[in-house]
Amino acid sequence: MAGAPRLITLLTDFGQQDHYVAAVKGVMLSINANLHFVDITHQIPAQDVQSAAFSLGQVYGYFPEETIHLAVVDPGVGSGRKALIARAGDHFFVAPDNGILSYVLAREGEARIHEVSAEHYFRRPVSRTFHARDVFGPVAAWLSRDISLDQFGPLCERPVQLPIPRLTKVREGLIQAAVLAVDRFGNLITNLTPADIPCYGTADPRPCKLLAAQREITSFRGTFAEGGPGELFVVPGSTGYLEIVVRNGSAAATLGLGPGAMIGVKLG
Amino acid sequence: MAGAPRLITLLTDFGQQDHYVAAVKGVMLSINANLHFVDITHQIPAQDVQSAAFSLGQVYGYFPEETIHLAVVDPGVGSGRKALIARAGDHFFVAPDNGILSYVLAREGEARIHEVSAEHYFRRPVSRTFHARDVFGPVAAWLSRDISLDQFGPLCERPVQLPIPRLTKVREGLIQAAVLAVDRFGNLITNLTPADIPCYGTADPRPCKLLAAQREITSFRGTFAEGGPGELFVVPGSTGYLEIVVRNGSAAATLGLGPGAMIGVKLG
Amino acid sequence: MAGAPRLITLLTDFGQQDHYVAAVKGVMLSINANLHFVDITHQIPAQDVQSAAFSLGQVYGYFPEETIHLAVVDPGVGSGRKALIARAGDHFFVAPDNGILSYVLAREGEARIHEVSAEHYFRRPVSRTFHARDVFGPVAAWLSRDISLDQFGPLCERPVQLPIPRLTKVREGLIQAAVLAVDRFGNLITNLTPADIPCYGTADPRPCKLLAAQREITSFRGTFAEGGPGELFVVPGSTGYLEIVVRNGSAAATLGLGPGAMIGVKLG
Repeated sequence: MAGAPRLITLLTDFGQQDHYVAAVKGVMLSINANLHFVDITHQIPAQDVQSAAFSLGQVYGYFPEETIHLAVVDPGVGSGRKALIARAGDHFFVAPDNGILSYVLAREGEARIHEVSAEHYFRRPVSRTFHARDVFGPVAAWLSRDISLDQFGPLCERPVQLPIPRLTKVREGLIQAAVLAVDRFGNLITNLTPADIPCYGTADPRPCKLLAAQREITSFRGTFAEGGPGELFVVPGSTGYLEIVVRNGSAAATLGLGPGAMIGVKLG
Repeated sequence: MAGAPRLITLLTDFGQQDHYVAAVKGVMLSINANLHFVDITHQIPAQDVQSAAFSLGQVYGYFPEETIHLAVVDPGVGSGRKALIARAGDHFFVAPDNGILSYVLAREGEARIHEVSAEHYFRRPVSRTFHARDVFGPVAAWLSRDISLDQFGPLCERPVQLPIPRLTKVREGLIQAAVLAVDRFGNLITNLTPADIPCYGTADPRPCKLLAAQREITSFRGTFAEGGPGELFVVPGSTGYLEIVVRNGSAAATLGLGPGAMIGVKLG
Repeated sequence: MAGAPRLITLLTDFGQQDHYVAAVKGVMLSINANLHFVDITHQIPAQDVQSAAFSLGQVYGYFPEETIHLAVVDPGVGSGRKALIARAGDHFFVAPDNGILSYVLAREGEARIHEVSAEHYFRRPVSRTFHARDVFGPVAAWLSRDISLDQFGPLCERPVQLPIPRLTKVREGLIQAAVLAVDRFGNLITNLTPADIPCYGTADPRPCKLLAAQREITSFRGTFAEGGPGELFVVPGSTGYLEIVVRNGSAAATLGLGPGAMIGVKLG
């Protein structure tokens, strides 16, 4: 008899063409047969830790407490980078120590993070190129069997953290913002929230423009459906951030911008 | 202790690159931990309600009774379009009121359809751009916990219906038919069934041709394997409809045709 | 009350755009509601039995014993090719008799293979184009309900076997090897293992080169991370085979090689 299965999410850059994701799942199911996998995505651009960190930070909070999030985008595999196991916000995370947890840690503030060193939880032999299968997956599966964090290794005091672009006041009436990510529709997800912009959230009566790639964007809409055909406009996105979008088109292609690009907010 | 999990299928145009599908699943699992998700597809062309309606109509019947089908291709998100919850053919459906249920309703004839208005079943706050996460997903999850349809809102008498292309007799010996969909191999799925064509189903002794994009197709095969290399031919497809195909090639590309294209059947 | 669900993996060339995979899952769930599906991949190149056989052979062993592996890449659908059900290495396999089990059978040595002929386990009517839904899926689902192999049909003595490229000694100091597969990163997976090459496994003191597409590769690394930018090098891959790779690039594109390509190993 089994209770409800333990929930494990997976976030990788392995793609869905090869059998790598399935190998990781098979190894985990060999350790705990009663798992429920939810794939977040396996289409993170290869080795793009920043995109993976952003996606993980956006999505983990929608899952129930006690969910285990396995996130492996791992350009440093086979080098000396640590493996981490963490508890933050009543969720668990298993990931390489390369900053992939940065958005989670920024959001949660407090976290308990251990370096994974107890090799008897690994699949043997450990390959030098596929730690999702040999280290991270097995550790997540053992964690799902209620092994406590301190069994996996010592506390990690200083996990690697990626810089997360913040809003910067350049001068009165000019804020520097950034593009955090681009979704598959080409929508540019910024680090602005509705509360940062007069026409959505602030009481500031000044007119407002977004400056992006030499263009001025002055159209601020409530929904996609309100945009005109071909119009470049701003809309509150489902992630909580403002997005620069083109209805039925790609703002990323229109502006030639991508993650990390600087944009401006001009008031008055 | 848990019984067999409740089955929920998902059909969207969200793609698999972003974390949107996982967010919907996470929200649902937070309402009911004992769910089994089957992804129908998340690669419906963006905002193509017609394709989504066709796919849903083709596939739902293979699932067990009581399956909940969550279908969200939703160009009207944030506008006033209704949300629907329906029971038809012993299956449940949760979807926007934009015609996405048209093939299901055409097949089942009878259905009980409610407009979803009971906001206490929604995730709060409801975003204006992501109702799969905030409205449809939560409603499907509550439905899986055996909330009855009338708890979600009043009956909906006139759901939006898409026109479904029918066969039309143009004159004696000439029938107008249509392409309903194109699959990933480039096979053109028509609205003809074997019963409509002499060489498969009817007793009509007249020779028969398909007219498509200025081409005459006179080759009617029983299986893919019977077609010659490069040959354009007709074959009974797995959906029950006749398909125009090229073995090891794309009929859609060869003919330059897609969904909605008119074709003809000429007898004699 | 349900025990842990029975595990079924799926490997096809159906893609994820259409609803075909979901139809197969729906049919299986209608026979046994307590299944756990793991998708190995549905992106095998269309009708490429060789690639499917390689992927299946690489991955099945990571799953728990008693897992049922449903592998359908089936260019001969609708022709007279047999359907097989097999037990090998404490795993079960359901597949067309076209060589897709070749790597599994080569690895396991012993297997019990039955031809599926008991049509009462099929979905009726059996289409001529979609046996995954009508034959293989239903058979796998009935197998998951503990129907014994001999109930499905008679023993199959001579299943179709694909040739698996072996290492050949061309002359003293020259071995002919081959590319078995290309992964999505463009890494060339060879049929060489570390034990075949001096610098990894053998005690042979002679210098060693790989000959591939008129190029000599003399760089043998332990991990991806050790390669220089743009460098073409060899690394022990996660499958147990040596791979020819370019860090942050595609060796397949660089060399213009793919599955089946011959390569050489030169000693001294």
